[in-house]
Amino acid sequence: MTQSDHHQNRPHAAAPLASTHELTSERPLAFEVTARSGGARAGVLRTPHGAVQTPAFVAVGTQASVKSASPDVVKDTGTQLLFANTYHLYLRPGADLVARHGGLHRFMRWQGPIFTDSGGFQVFSLGASIDHGVGKVASIFPGEEPQSNLRRQSGSGMVKVREEGVEFKSHIDGSKHWFTPEKSIQIQRQLGADIVLAFDECTSPLHDEAYTRASLERTHRWAKRSYEEFMRTGALHGYPQALYGIVQGGAFRDQRLESAAVIGGMPFHGVAIGGNLGSTHQEMYDILDWTVPQLPEPLPRHLLGIGDVPGIFEAVARGVDTFDCVAPTRNARTATIMIRQSDDGRPAPRFRLNLRGKAFETDMRPLEVGCDCYTCTNFTRSYVRHLFRAGENLGPQLATIHNLRFMARLMDDIRSAIQRGTFDELRRVTLAG
Amino acid sequence: MTQSDHHQNRPHAAAPLASTHELTSERPLAFEVTARSGGARAGVLRTPHGAVQTPAFVAVGTQASVKSASPDVVKDTGTQLLFANTYHLYLRPGADLVARHGGLHRFMRWQGPIFTDSGGFQVFSLGASIDHGVGKVASIFPGEEPQSNLRRQSGSGMVKVREEGVEFKSHIDGSKHWFTPEKSIQIQRQLGADIVLAFDECTSPLHDEAYTRASLERTHRWAKRSYEEFMRTGALHGYPQALYGIVQGGAFRDQRLESAAVIGGMPFHGVAIGGNLGSTHQEMYDILDWTVPQLPEPLPRHLLGIGDVPGIFEAVARGVDTFDCVAPTRNARTATIMIRQSDDGRPAPRFRLNLRGKAFETDMRPLEVGCDCYTCTNFTRSYVRHLFRAGENLGPQLATIHNLRFMARLMDDIRSAIQRGTFDELRRVTLAG
Repeated sequence: MTQSDHHQNRPHAAAPLASTHELTSERPLAFEVTARSGGARAGVLRTPHGAVQTPAFVAVGTQASVKSASPDVVKDTGTQLLFANTYHLYLRPGADLVARHGGLHRFMRWQGPIFTDSGGFQVFSLGASIDHGVGKVASIFPGEEPQSNLRRQSGSGMVKVREEGVEFKSHIDGSKHWFTPEKSIQIQRQLGADIVLAFDECTSPLHDEAYTRASLERTHRWAKRSYEEFMRTGALHGYPQALYGIVQGGAFRDQRLESAAVIGGMPFHGVAIGGNLGSTHQEMYDILDWTVPQLPEPLPRHLLGIGDVPGIFEAVARGVDTFDCVAPTRNARTATIMIRQSDDGRPAPRFRLNLRGKAFETDMRPLEVGCDCYTCTNFTRSYVRHLFRAGENLGPQLATIHNLRFMARLMDDIRSAIQRGTFDELRRVTLAG
Repeated sequence: MTQSDHHQNRPHAAAPLASTHELTSERPLAFEVTARSGGARAGVLRTPHGAVQTPAFVAVGTQASVKSASPDVVKDTGTQLLFANTYHLYLRPGADLVARHGGLHRFMRWQGPIFTDSGGFQVFSLGASIDHGVGKVASIFPGEEPQSNLRRQSGSGMVKVREEGVEFKSHIDGSKHWFTPEKSIQIQRQLGADIVLAFDECTSPLHDEAYTRASLERTHRWAKRSYEEFMRTGALHGYPQALYGIVQGGAFRDQRLESAAVIGGMPFHGVAIGGNLGSTHQEMYDILDWTVPQLPEPLPRHLLGIGDVPGIFEAVARGVDTFDCVAPTRNARTATIMIRQSDDGRPAPRFRLNLRGKAFETDMRPLEVGCDCYTCTNFTRSYVRHLFRAGENLGPQLATIHNLRFMARLMDDIRSAIQRGTFDELRRVTLAG
């Protein structure tokens, strides 16, 4: 059985594009909630490149490539949609080149839906967050690796924020660049993702209340400018694009409430929750508790940069529909394998095992017992560990397949549980570590 | 269309194992010549893991992994068989661990036939060749990258040759090890390849005639000891193994003639031509002209470490059946793409292009126009170049798929031409650079 044949009959593959032809520039996205279980909801998000069953995990392909996995391999894991990076693609290879290919889908040969962020997070994560010595992810989950780009650069002066926009230096060659809300939207028109994000400022957990307030108000003005530029420009590649606004406001309750009302009150096609999500899991849950109830019920909700198992369960419980995070693919490259249960049948600590451990040297089991991915149905822990120790690229490749499949299966189970009304039970059983 | 579906109907896939059940420890291999065109021959080599259409290129999976390609991906390129490395696998992860999996096929999940070398080449390439500052490949093809392990280590004292065997230091941690013909065979029994090689000494082009002569005679005694150990021991994994002898003798005519007679006169199941193959392409052709006519006609003939296009054509013309070489996969990792024709329709210089060139930045063509591989049917040169420039692992992965498919298509065309009696014409047209 080949890698592709293996999963061809999966029920969770993106549904046929029955209603894609109904999507227009006025209605570039169709979202329907089909089931609820407490605050959690399951639904279908239709885009010009197919329908996504939600809640869904969005795999990250920063530079128009999911690291170590071809588009066919990504698809075979049950991954439904991707997240690509405006900042990185603008710097390299340049949005013109992507546009010349007819947009990201054709450039990277991903047939499913794609998100692009606005570049805001990267512009600031290479600036202020570094000045503070912290990154968004690092601050939320102590012990996690911060995003590599947060580590690569240091020192101040990388970013200058003005009302008009942001001046920043390339992390590649130090060259100076200038992003405005208008420019971010123009670049995202060239890139051609199904869903694009408004340009925002992403504050750091160490920004004080006053700075965060000033930044928030600027972000709201930028949201309006992003929307106006989006309306002024048209889609370039023959299918419509949708625009999400981004709620900011740091860990400050009044700012989050206000931002949810302002962004939720604008005619966006969906809402993303971004920025500094607090310093602990609980703070992130508080932020969601403040924010989500303020958002318009019919709009799809995306939580930016979160992909750990408890975080996903708690956010789904609070009504979030989609998530993106580099962790599954980044972890894979360091032999960190995502699993739900340890070998003793109990929830695995942090839902992972590090395959480099000596204990796995002669372990003949698959990476995760019971997993149906190409890696787990073919190879032993012992073999994959050998690949990592020997420096073979196939190690990260096989681990990436498993971790993406892990996320897809997790989201499948979450959706099924919502449909059956047993989501809280699944959450309890899964998280009872 | 998925990567696997894409090639499922390929006519050149390994034939069904109709006669595998006839293979026994007395007859572990069946080779039949089915067509001739001048000195070139086409045939079928049956092994316990399937039949190989010859002439065939053997892809290298040194550490039980074809670098950057999963077994399914390798199979989809039309690659029929693999070559793994006794020296490397003995050091890491150890032959015991491979045996515990039931042999290499199960360890690495490659269902087709596998060769293992005896470890001789690596033991010596980490010793004497380095003392001489040259490697086998580097010396034959000026400008080629030498094998990386030839560069990593330097200085003398890595290897001590005695009649009994060879003492060497691990390139990984400097630990001391001892290989004898007996031990090499025992390890290869554990690894469980379909075809294993006798233990030999691989001399360097800078060894003089006297040293090469003494070495040759020792290699002949080692061939006898390898054969005796092979007969004394049995296969461990439930299917028989075949043993090839190795012809040595450097670039010295009388020594090659003698070695072909001695090795060809022993009851091996096939013959490999190894060692120092001269300092120019012409010297290698001379060596083949001396050697091949001395070999028993019914035995399959393998040329060790050669995989460039002219070398393959000239060796096939002289009656060689199989080839292994790291070049296609190694080149892929440096964005060196194998092609037959340049964009002007003429044979490409050295049958390659380097995708990093600025000229390919906006090149919307596939890596090789007309190629049917997953990479060429999906991606542009522009995109794959972007992957290499951005440091994405998918770049080497996609280039590896193409280069392996290039080799498979080349060998397909060579076989067809032999069957049609037009091999010389294909050689002339292909090489008329």
